Amino acid sequence: MSSESKPWAGRFTQATDAFVEAFTASVGFDQRLARHDIQGSIAHATMLARIGVLSQKDLHTIVGGLETILAEIERGDFFWSVELEDVHMNIEARLTDRIGEAGKKLHTGRSRNDQVATDIRLYLRDEIDGLCQQLATLRAALIDLAEREADTILPGFTHLQVAQPVSFGHHLMAWHEMLARDQDRLRDCRKRLNVMPLGAAALAGTTFPLDRHYTAELLGFDRPAANSLDAVSDRDFAIEFTACASLVMMHLSRFSEELILWTSAQFAFVDLPDAFCTGSSIMPQKKNPDVPELVRGKAGRVFGHLVGLLTLMKSQPLAYNKDNQEDKEPLFDTLDTLKACLRAYTDMVPHLAPNREAMRLAALKGYATATDLADYLVRKGIAFRDAHEVVGKAVRLGIDSGRDLSQLTLDELKALSPRIEADVFGILTLEGSLQARDHFGGTAPNQVRQAVARARAQLAEEAQP
Amino acid sequence: MSSESKPWAGRFTQATDAFVEAFTASVGFDQRLARHDIQGSIAHATMLARIGVLSQKDLHTIVGGLETILAEIERGDFFWSVELEDVHMNIEARLTDRIGEAGKKLHTGRSRNDQVATDIRLYLRDEIDGLCQQLATLRAALIDLAEREADTILPGFTHLQVAQPVSFGHHLMAWHEMLARDQDRLRDCRKRLNVMPLGAAALAGTTFPLDRHYTAELLGFDRPAANSLDAVSDRDFAIEFTACASLVMMHLSRFSEELILWTSAQFAFVDLPDAFCTGSSIMPQKKNPDVPELVRGKAGRVFGHLVGLLTLMKSQPLAYNKDNQEDKEPLFDTLDTLKACLRAYTDMVPHLAPNREAMRLAALKGYATATDLADYLVRKGIAFRDAHEVVGKAVRLGIDSGRDLSQLTLDELKALSPRIEADVFGILTLEGSLQARDHFGGTAPNQVRQAVARARAQLAEEAQP
Amino acid sequence: MSSESKPWAGRFTQATDAFVEAFTASVGFDQRLARHDIQGSIAHATMLARIGVLSQKDLHTIVGGLETILAEIERGDFFWSVELEDVHMNIEARLTDRIGEAGKKLHTGRSRNDQVATDIRLYLRDEIDGLCQQLATLRAALIDLAEREADTILPGFTHLQVAQPVSFGHHLMAWHEMLARDQDRLRDCRKRLNVMPLGAAALAGTTFPLDRHYTAELLGFDRPAANSLDAVSDRDFAIEFTACASLVMMHLSRFSEELILWTSAQFAFVDLPDAFCTGSSIMPQKKNPDVPELVRGKAGRVFGHLVGLLTLMKSQPLAYNKDNQEDKEPLFDTLDTLKACLRAYTDMVPHLAPNREAMRLAALKGYATATDLADYLVRKGIAFRDAHEVVGKAVRLGIDSGRDLSQLTLDELKALSPRIEADVFGILTLEGSLQARDHFGGTAPNQVRQAVARARAQLAEEAQP
Amino acid sequence: MSSESKPWAGRFTQATDAFVEAFTASVGFDQRLARHDIQGSIAHATMLARIGVLSQKDLHTIVGGLETILAEIERGDFFWSVELEDVHMNIEARLTDRIGEAGKKLHTGRSRNDQVATDIRLYLRDEIDGLCQQLATLRAALIDLAEREADTILPGFTHLQVAQPVSFGHHLMAWHEMLARDQDRLRDCRKRLNVMPLGAAALAGTTFPLDRHYTAELLGFDRPAANSLDAVSDRDFAIEFTACASLVMMHLSRFSEELILWTSAQFAFVDLPDAFCTGSSIMPQKKNPDVPELVRGKAGRVFGHLVGLLTLMKSQPLAYNKDNQEDKEPLFDTLDTLKACLRAYTDMVPHLAPNREAMRLAALKGYATATDLADYLVRKGIAFRDAHEVVGKAVRLGIDSGRDLSQLTLDELKALSPRIEADVFGILTLEGSLQARDHFGGTAPNQVRQAVARARAQLAEEAQP
Repeated sequence: MSSESKPWAGRFTQATDAFVEAFTASVGFDQRLARHDIQGSIAHATMLARIGVLSQKDLHTIVGGLETILAEIERGDFFWSVELEDVHMNIEARLTDRIGEAGKKLHTGRSRNDQVATDIRLYLRDEIDGLCQQLATLRAALIDLAEREADTILPGFTHLQVAQPVSFGHHLMAWHEMLARDQDRLRDCRKRLNVMPLGAAALAGTTFPLDRHYTAELLGFDRPAANSLDAVSDRDFAIEFTACASLVMMHLSRFSEELILWTSAQFAFVDLPDAFCTGSSIMPQKKNPDVPELVRGKAGRVFGHLVGLLTLMKSQPLAYNKDNQEDKEPLFDTLDTLKACLRAYTDMVPHLAPNREAMRLAALKGYATATDLADYLVRKGIAFRDAHEVVGKAVRLGIDSGRDLSQLTLDELKALSPRIEADVFGILTLEGSLQARDHFGGTAPNQVRQAVARARAQLAEEAQP
Repeated sequence: MSSESKPWAGRFTQATDAFVEAFTASVGFDQRLARHDIQGSIAHATMLARIGVLSQKDLHTIVGGLETILAEIERGDFFWSVELEDVHMNIEARLTDRIGEAGKKLHTGRSRNDQVATDIRLYLRDEIDGLCQQLATLRAALIDLAEREADTILPGFTHLQVAQPVSFGHHLMAWHEMLARDQDRLRDCRKRLNVMPLGAAALAGTTFPLDRHYTAELLGFDRPAANSLDAVSDRDFAIEFTACASLVMMHLSRFSEELILWTSAQFAFVDLPDAFCTGSSIMPQKKNPDVPELVRGKAGRVFGHLVGLLTLMKSQPLAYNKDNQEDKEPLFDTLDTLKACLRAYTDMVPHLAPNREAMRLAALKGYATATDLADYLVRKGIAFRDAHEVVGKAVRLGIDSGRDLSQLTLDELKALSPRIEADVFGILTLEGSLQARDHFGGTAPNQVRQAVARARAQLAEEAQP
Repeated sequence: MSSESKPWAGRFTQATDAFVEAFTASVGFDQRLARHDIQGSIAHATMLARIGVLSQKDLHTIVGGLETILAEIERGDFFWSVELEDVHMNIEARLTDRIGEAGKKLHTGRSRNDQVATDIRLYLRDEIDGLCQQLATLRAALIDLAEREADTILPGFTHLQVAQPVSFGHHLMAWHEMLARDQDRLRDCRKRLNVMPLGAAALAGTTFPLDRHYTAELLGFDRPAANSLDAVSDRDFAIEFTACASLVMMHLSRFSEELILWTSAQFAFVDLPDAFCTGSSIMPQKKNPDVPELVRGKAGRVFGHLVGLLTLMKSQPLAYNKDNQEDKEPLFDTLDTLKACLRAYTDMVPHLAPNREAMRLAALKGYATATDLADYLVRKGIAFRDAHEVVGKAVRLGIDSGRDLSQLTLDELKALSPRIEADVFGILTLEGSLQARDHFGGTAPNQVRQAVARARAQLAEEAQP
Repeated sequence: MSSESKPWAGRFTQATDAFVEAFTASVGFDQRLARHDIQGSIAHATMLARIGVLSQKDLHTIVGGLETILAEIERGDFFWSVELEDVHMNIEARLTDRIGEAGKKLHTGRSRNDQVATDIRLYLRDEIDGLCQQLATLRAALIDLAEREADTILPGFTHLQVAQPVSFGHHLMAWHEMLARDQDRLRDCRKRLNVMPLGAAALAGTTFPLDRHYTAELLGFDRPAANSLDAVSDRDFAIEFTACASLVMMHLSRFSEELILWTSAQFAFVDLPDAFCTGSSIMPQKKNPDVPELVRGKAGRVFGHLVGLLTLMKSQPLAYNKDNQEDKEPLFDTLDTLKACLRAYTDMVPHLAPNREAMRLAALKGYATATDLADYLVRKGIAFRDAHEVVGKAVRLGIDSGRDLSQLTLDELKALSPRIEADVFGILTLEGSLQARDHFGGTAPNQVRQAVARARAQLAEEAQP
């Protein structure tokens, strides 16, 4: 393309270098914004007509032209030109090709600076809504599984050492809590995002008497941005979103780590369906938990995008700088990654098959009811710190003689503390231990079922418009 | 300390290695949580008494003991022991020293896992409140300055090239917008933070019939955490807070970059008071904008802490792991950095001295009213894209002959477009350009004053409890 | 694809889920490794024939088949199948299609784990060689420009305040030094990279008597990896490379920042050719330094990939995990970014047009020779700290009366220090100041020319094989 | 301190704000550089005397004064003043206090810009030497343990699924390889670091005829920095070092993950001595692998510092900016972290107690010899891909009937492939499998012992000066 045909060519004497043209073009990735770019243009044109800057006829022509172009794009019939730099100029040039003079009027009272900021917000808003849907679906799947497994006993770990028996359903509800916070964060992010840059023009606003509140209403924004300089230079929403996404991925990496542990032969707590695993090109016996491993690995990718975006914005003077073109690819890849990983989990969770016997056996082996013994002693009037010490000695005795606490004799126990009586054996069982943690947030199956009910109600409430 | 005196020594046969003891101890930094640790312990004891696990007498003794210890700590009279590992054990050991038997009962129904999670939340909640105060004060200072400078003309930049004249007050209000979002984000973070882990005990809850809603109420938490496993393992709040802090620092790095540019001899738009600068040990003429430079540099520090915390939590299986001890130092340093940088800006902003003449001269030189000419042509009936091209040629002519647009003759302008008439010179002035951007969010001084009024009202509303 | 046709299908009873298949497939991006995959396969087959595991006939057939496939790929005639997961299985399946039974023997004594590790190293080694070429070319361009501008006076800045006059050529040689270190680092990275994983098989080596030294020699590796577990799990090279790349990008971001400053109207030290700039869709007068801005922005992207890769490897147990599949995209994007940015700079540097008059005027205004006055006083017998104080007062006097140091009268100067005599005016000129810094590494034009000569010699020496 | 007494006060009319003084001061952390600052000052003074700028008498007085001050500092008798900003001014002010006039001459021909850059390099060089020592010691410990455990059978994992039996010694040697690369990287980093900034002065060199090669020689630098602007603004070495440190920490996080897995009840492959573990304040039975967990957690801290430093340097124009003061704390904390973690590992490794029986049993259960069966079939003339499929079916049969491969009958095996004969049972044992991987880099105990011998020789060679 000769520089003559560039929208900004007037002042230039030399054509853009071909490599530079390709290097600086964004159309390769920003074409993803086409639908929202057209949505924004239609609203802008509608507003221009309302304030008398466009005639109704021009408006009609422009809207028709844009709708035709959108159909071309959605059919895959649109030719994207690198010479036209970006999604905006590609669409505008095609519009002018199709409808002539009226097309040249569309850019009145706006700039690509406010246009692109508006496009990304519209696009990201839709994507956030989709992610919230996905999160809600995954939460629902966890809640269902948690309800089914409320009575299943899993050894609870701290420091990857068996600590106390917990309900497997309780464990799944911990996952649910993380995702509920994630969804809450995304909603807050959406709220701050939903502010319209359009009308800021290049940086200072425009000399046309724009009705920005009207355009905002047409586009479903809560309000127009209050400051034009901020409107074109602000990328907080991309960073805030990527930070939210990093937390989602961090959570998924934790779930994945647990699934990988649980499907190892050593734990064998859970079986993943074959459909979510792959084999080895050399070791025929392998069944690898590829999906959780890949999700775990993808956490780094999203953390990296967050760093990329923070670095991008660091020290940028106002208002718009070309650097900002680099906001899109990390954002798009973050979205793609998140959607795929949530999809993978949503498909997989209903098929998690707990091996209840293996869980139970593991819980039995780890002196998991030691705290119950300490609490028993407290109830018998011993101060907690002293009780703790008695139990430590009982565990030591168990280890040295290869027995669990419930296998020690009453005499042995009494030698450690005369307050111990025969009723102690009731509290040293896994079931007893589990049932006993019967307060809000505790692991008693009864509490898990209440948590399930509350979570279902919360999901239903959130689904209200 | 012999391993005999460790709170968990019962099961061990070998003393902790001295280096390991120092390596794993956290008291060197977590003593900062002492006040909130004691606050949490008093509430826990009060609740234990209410449910009958502690006698009123024990409660009275414990509360008295803890208050005395707090006074010791605040006086600097407390000896912190590395052997006692952390702030919790140091305080509890001292309590038992002072009040005897009753002290050993305090840890009933809790664990250090839920205790530390509660302490950090209480601490961070207070700190966030302080940061919001600081942000509000800085915003007020910007609003005042913006009002004073609403009519001051600054060349607005995009790509660090003069773009269009803007009000200096408008530019300051762009800074305000960023900080207003930051404060909003911190409020959302505080909301998600204000949930109480206490009662989760080690991971599964406890066998005592805790009234967690009562403890939450005593501590000003919105509610107890709904899942014990999540409660002890969740560090989302630290990451979310550090992400919010990273955005604040990113914004301050942008302000700093601009102040550094503006105080350079080349721009000379603003003068910083001597009190905020330092000199050179070798070049006697230097007056360096140290404060903005240092703030800009400190952005990296906070971004780094964010990465540190995300990395920390990646792939951690539930529930508590020792890794989590590493959450405190990045959080504390983030807080210290943020408080100091906000303090520096709050002190500095009221003393920013704009050099109005230099700003005006710079605006005059950059063909800053070219867009106004294009808009003028649109109003004369030329399509925007065509108008843009005409103006490009006018600028070319100006550059080639060393003149600004307002210095071209009417004949020269007419040669470029016959629609141009004598009234064009009215819109080519800086003042005319500024006044013309008179819509919501635009740079017209009139709009800046409205934005100032709105921002003041918003600040006042946010200050309501 | 039915799971029956997967290379690892034997043990599975359920077909891979279609979404999972797409989610876990890497062929979309790892097909970029095709040439090096085939290079590795040919060497592996050659070695297998040498040790008698393959017949010469099979070898001949395999090599012929692989070469044909490479030609297909390079022509764009190869169909990449997502069902076949990755570049390795796609090529192997095509080979067996073409040559039958012999194709099935190629995977003897290797696994995809060692195969992919080998492919990436071969690929990255070539890319590093290309980058070193690019760096050398850019360094040569800087050296040429530095030589031309050795006598050009630029105000040297610290804290973005004029500090002392420097040679523009000297400044360019500072850029050169950064890139020379970058190239040195890449060479060290290549050295550590050039170790062959092949023969590690899945993780433990193989039961065939491989001659790994021979394969290494065929592939130009310095040696086979010494430990099979390490060989398949090690991704240090990717991280080390990305760290090197981050430093390159950090340097380019600094050059870019300076070009953006220098091409602003306020500095106007340098003009960029139109071919490296673009205009504005709304402000016809703009000529924006897009290329430096974009390069500056791309720094974040590469820093982000570094974080992504470190996060990826954090806490991974040995040996190979599926997470590692995530090593490729950040590495490839880092390479693409680096190559494009270096290309942009290499094209641009020879066309940087300094505005010598503007630089000189700026140097004159900033009391840039104040240090020279201090040094003068030291030579007259005043201690440096006392001299510094005298000059501080002279600068104060200059600022208060709007004059540079050279415009103060001898009487005024004498009043500050009686040791000042008429000869002082000789050292207060820019040229005098520049010439006086005439030691190794100093800014005297004479020293710059020596640095240029040394750098040329260094480049020539590095170009030796 | 009144601004009158600042070294740069001459030009200022207003005293530094007290908060600003504290905010910008670095003495709180840079006092750590005192010894190297004095080392650099002594070399600088010696050179100044040699070129005649200082008298021998002044030199003698200065050196004596500095040595006295160093002794004061090392005794803890030195009062560090925040008003004096940094370590440099504190020491220089004390020197002038003690020795009078001569002290004021020391700063001739240098600036704090080149001084601090020199100090950090001297300091970091010593620290790197110490780290290399620590790495060598840890490697030696691993080598010793590997030798002892060369014949111990560990199930080798990929995807945390049992893959093939490996020698435990071989696994430890994989750890060794990682650390050997780390040490190699640190040596390369030291090489690039060992270049002297001193003589660059503020940014441009100085008017005194410094003999920088002489100073470099005195300080053990390989050469003076070739460009003064680069010398004061370069912080590559800090970033490169932190990148090397991040790789060390990434490796230690992997070792830690494995130790945490291996000490879990589920794996129980290794026992950590009590001295490296701690207990629980609530669960008396717990023995937590605190040291590995904490080391794993500390990886994030170092990754964060790397990000902080990259962000710091992004987009900084030349030459020195105050931002750079932020280079020290992340560097110091990285060093402290690395030293402590290496110390912890070095103390711990010799005490790792493998549970050989548990390892062996785990290897037996995972069809770990399936690849051996495939290789057996290849040797019987079946193509690898076909062999792989046969073995997949054998594994399926084993899983379905709850037997390992060695427990299938010859008839069952023959049904899968008629080429299988009675000799197959020889290769299906763990020992047979291990012994068979007998090539360079393979896991055969014989190869492990050779690797041990090579590693010892390499360590010895590296220890040569």
